[in-house]
Amino acid sequence: MMAAVFDSAFKIVGRCRKKTQTEAGATEQRLYTVISEAIADAKVDKVLGIGLGSPGPLDPNTGVIIDTPNLKWKNFPLAATLQKKFKVPVVVDNDVNVGTYGEWRFGAIKNCQNVIGFFPGTGIGGGLIINGKLLHGFSGAAGEFGHMTVQLDGPFCGCGKRGCLEAVASRIAIAEQVIALAARGDAPNILRDCGTDLAKVRSGALAKAIRAGDTMVEDVVRKAAYYMGVAVANMINAVSPEAVVLGGGWVEAMPELYLEEGQRAVKYHAMPFLRKGVKIVPAKLGDNAVAMGAAHLIAERLAEGLI
Amino acid sequence: MMAAVFDSAFKIVGRCRKKTQTEAGATEQRLYTVISEAIADAKVDKVLGIGLGSPGPLDPNTGVIIDTPNLKWKNFPLAATLQKKFKVPVVVDNDVNVGTYGEWRFGAIKNCQNVIGFFPGTGIGGGLIINGKLLHGFSGAAGEFGHMTVQLDGPFCGCGKRGCLEAVASRIAIAEQVIALAARGDAPNILRDCGTDLAKVRSGALAKAIRAGDTMVEDVVRKAAYYMGVAVANMINAVSPEAVVLGGGWVEAMPELYLEEGQRAVKYHAMPFLRKGVKIVPAKLGDNAVAMGAAHLIAERLAEGLI
Repeated sequence: MMAAVFDSAFKIVGRCRKKTQTEAGATEQRLYTVISEAIADAKVDKVLGIGLGSPGPLDPNTGVIIDTPNLKWKNFPLAATLQKKFKVPVVVDNDVNVGTYGEWRFGAIKNCQNVIGFFPGTGIGGGLIINGKLLHGFSGAAGEFGHMTVQLDGPFCGCGKRGCLEAVASRIAIAEQVIALAARGDAPNILRDCGTDLAKVRSGALAKAIRAGDTMVEDVVRKAAYYMGVAVANMINAVSPEAVVLGGGWVEAMPELYLEEGQRAVKYHAMPFLRKGVKIVPAKLGDNAVAMGAAHLIAERLAEGLI
Repeated sequence: MMAAVFDSAFKIVGRCRKKTQTEAGATEQRLYTVISEAIADAKVDKVLGIGLGSPGPLDPNTGVIIDTPNLKWKNFPLAATLQKKFKVPVVVDNDVNVGTYGEWRFGAIKNCQNVIGFFPGTGIGGGLIINGKLLHGFSGAAGEFGHMTVQLDGPFCGCGKRGCLEAVASRIAIAEQVIALAARGDAPNILRDCGTDLAKVRSGALAKAIRAGDTMVEDVVRKAAYYMGVAVANMINAVSPEAVVLGGGWVEAMPELYLEEGQRAVKYHAMPFLRKGVKIVPAKLGDNAVAMGAAHLIAERLAEGLI
């Protein structure tokens, strides 16, 4: 959990970061603490509003979290709760949306009207900016790129259906293959660092093993990144963005690999007329993307007098 | 080629329809004739503007057709040419976009802010309405749903790549399987009506064979319709529309089959939270959808004073 305080030029003037607590009720308390300490750190007299990126699904209009099993929130009125606590307007949006928004407002894809963001990791989050606005769609939860089907009758996904992008390209899909390689003696660096424990295979260990020469590990990750690229290509064909931003911890750990495979897949699977001139770029704000995007969102709402 | 003249209440007061001519230069002449005869048919004194749906890719901002091999148009300034000829403002957009727009403005999906249209046939066209506006995207050609990859390393598509939706779900993909069934004696009604000639297998012959009891033909078409449904589900996950309209000659010939398979695929492949409450409906304007959509587009532009 991270909170940052921004001045009117969007410069960070205070921050706080703490491990998320997930016992029922503890999440909110921890959230209050992190926000309060960031404000204290900034030594400001007045906070004008709070913007927040949260796991979803959630309703961005009301700021109600529909269901986040990891945080034990179900129909939880997050925006209203924070508004009551801190006595300022609050806007809540999906964390990946907000991250895409931050990269768009402050990162490598400024001034593009149509942008999509892919954030592969434990899941594969997505965000869309269409005609200069975050797209929420009818449900409020547009951007579930991780659950687009890329392999009909493919392996099971955590969502219960088969063949989702996440089922072939997210952390567990990669880790299960890499662990099998380690068990067979084909991934010596993974075996040394993670044993054969799927839970220990994370982006850092993979990047290290690839640098150290585990070529079959590299092949597994490249294939997953290529699958992600197929989904990127499908979205280019469907909505014709001007830029695609690839972000999150996995892309940060292996930016060249993800960019190369993403570009390779787009070159094959996107129509020439639609992929022409499309920028595919790595995110550049890292952990700050969500905070910066959320700060800009609340600033915009305040400026428009919407809340 | 069809032209219709609308009064200010969008009632059709005149029309003309002729077979498209495809020799170089003849297309334009035929277009002038069809428009002129529709105006004569309407007996109106004054035409305020012309809206037009054309095969693409095209640039909807300039009205230039980039490349339509069937009509022998390459970088052809269609809007400017018609404007000069008829001395009124002209707006040109992709035919499937305009058809989706017509169904949205006048058909079964009025008042929805986010809509996608799928029009399977010889190709599989698509259109998106996002936040109440047709989406063109960066290239101007958003909505190429037919070239989204649904089967990695699948059969070849007319576009030259493998595994596109069109490669498994459009007319030729269906016809090649049905002809093989006919040759083996497994599709007696197709054999009687089409022989084993792929070019003769069209939606009408398929619908008739299915009604007459060619069960393996039905299975082939259902599988193609299901593939289309997977792409619909992917778009629901990605952009979260409120409604999906299925149209074109194939859906008109077999509406129940396409709706059933579309809904079945969406139920499995779209996330419950995103598919909840989404209307999946057949187009209801038939051939008039493009004309009505185009008429509304030019009326809007005139009202906004944009041209």
